[in-house]
Amino acid sequence: MKQFVVIGLGRFGSSVARTLCQKGFDVLAIDIDEERVQALADEVTHAVQADATDEEAMKSLGIRNFDIAIISIGTDIHSNILTTLLVKELGVKYVVVKAQTELHGKVLTKIGADKVVYPERDMGVRVANSLISSNVLDLIEVSPEYTIAEVTASPKLYGHTLSDLQFRTRFGVNVIAIKNGDKINVTPRATDEIKKGDILIVIGENENLERLRKY
Amino acid sequence: MKQFVVIGLGRFGSSVARTLCQKGFDVLAIDIDEERVQALADEVTHAVQADATDEEAMKSLGIRNFDIAIISIGTDIHSNILTTLLVKELGVKYVVVKAQTELHGKVLTKIGADKVVYPERDMGVRVANSLISSNVLDLIEVSPEYTIAEVTASPKLYGHTLSDLQFRTRFGVNVIAIKNGDKINVTPRATDEIKKGDILIVIGENENLERLRKY
Ligand SMILES: Nc1ncnc2c1ncn2[C@@H]1O[C@H](COP(=O)(O)OP(=O)(O)OP(=O)(O)O)[C@@H](O)[C@H]1O
Ligand SMILES: Nc1ncnc2c1ncn2[C@@H]1O[C@H](COP(=O)(O)OP(=O)(O)OP(=O)(O)O)[C@@H](O)[C@H]1O
Ligand SMILES: [Ca+2]
Ligand SMILES: [Ca+2]
Ligand SMILES: [Ca+2]
Ligand SMILES: [Ca+2]
Repeated sequence: MKQFVVIGLGRFGSSVARTLCQKGFDVLAIDIDEERVQALADEVTHAVQADATDEEAMKSLGIRNFDIAIISIGTDIHSNILTTLLVKELGVKYVVVKAQTELHGKVLTKIGADKVVYPERDMGVRVANSLISSNVLDLIEVSPEYTIAEVTASPKLYGHTLSDLQFRTRFGVNVIAIKNGDKINVTPRATDEIKKGDILIVIGENENLERLRKY
Repeated sequence: MKQFVVIGLGRFGSSVARTLCQKGFDVLAIDIDEERVQALADEVTHAVQADATDEEAMKSLGIRNFDIAIISIGTDIHSNILTTLLVKELGVKYVVVKAQTELHGKVLTKIGADKVVYPERDMGVRVANSLISSNVLDLIEVSPEYTIAEVTASPKLYGHTLSDLQFRTRFGVNVIAIKNGDKINVTPRATDEIKKGDILIVIGENENLERLRKY
């Protein structure tokens, strides 16, 4: 089983640590701030107070035995970079680091970070997209041109089957699943009828999705 | 066209503002810190320095004419809550607020926030999930039991068609699309063959997805 160490227990780091533990993985959580450590102590395998830029402290915690490190020190870019260098030097194979800006991300990649993440930026894009079309509930970009999105069925679609509507021809998108309350139909058929409250999960080119949203 | 005001230009708020502008919407961006305002000035319709808890300042910016406000003041919970109250009082119909903790989120809902978001927490869950199964690249939960995920095709699948493999019967999941580099096939057919480097976009129950990941 993979061993994880999470360094920096802000909102992002704590959420990563908590989720990994909930899924049954061992997690060592580290922060320089004792209060942050205490706040998470009951929810992770081990939580310790330490300065992640202190080589001796990190060695004595056995950091090199971990498979994956997540470095989520935010504001203090200097500590974030130093910690990344140190953790790679100690031999951790896969190091994920939270970056502030793209420039910061480039530096992290150069010094050995295996993956750079931008939680606030990415979530900002998601939230903005969800606000633009109030009937798009969530989406994943599968490529720069294609997106999977949840779209609330417009009343004009109620009572019609997918084949009635010639759905794919009309909108240029495929219906992957249809949700209604707790229920979900993951094998939508041409004869399935769209009902009030249906949420369509669709895949298509961005401009075609736009057409469906505006219908 | 909807008018947006983004208050608090940290990493999350700037990303929301920038994305909305890139999609062609008008955005007023506000921060108490002049540096933050300057940093974003070229990328949004209007950027102004103001204290969002100052009623007179907010009135003179015409906040009540906006359709949607995104309040992304982070650390300073007091200002975050005061700003939410004020923006609702001024009559903005839809107010989205970034919260620190669930308790904070409950307070925000009580005082009128229409949507509460937890960018760091949600991204932490996503990143943790993606690390647990190194071949799951991105995912959306479509219900508590069903997920859409991108899964790197295991070498055992190479050279086989979906019907060879009896894919749906074997794994209990549907293939929605197949990506390979820049190319994407959004209408996978039974006779399509899985090749090296393919990324399968699938929908299925969580436990079945787990089975596919481990294959
Ligand atoms: N040298 C260090 N060693 C260990 N932990 C550190 C070190 N420097 C900072 N930290 C911790 O990293 C955590 C995250 O830092 P900070 O709150 O600045 O980031 P953030 O990006 O604003 O966080 P959030 O995920 O909440 O958005 C803090 O709890 C801080 O105490
Ligand atoms: N009263 C206020 N009026 C306007 N802006 C404010 C006010 N108080 C704080 N801000 C701004 O809100 C922004 C975000 O705050 P902060 O950096 O504490 O949040 P954060 O959650 O750590 O941000 P990030 O999105 O980067 O994670 C800052 O740029 C800050 O200047
Ligand atoms: Ca190990
Ligand atoms: Ca912060
Ligand atoms: Ca943050
Ligand atoms: Ca308006």
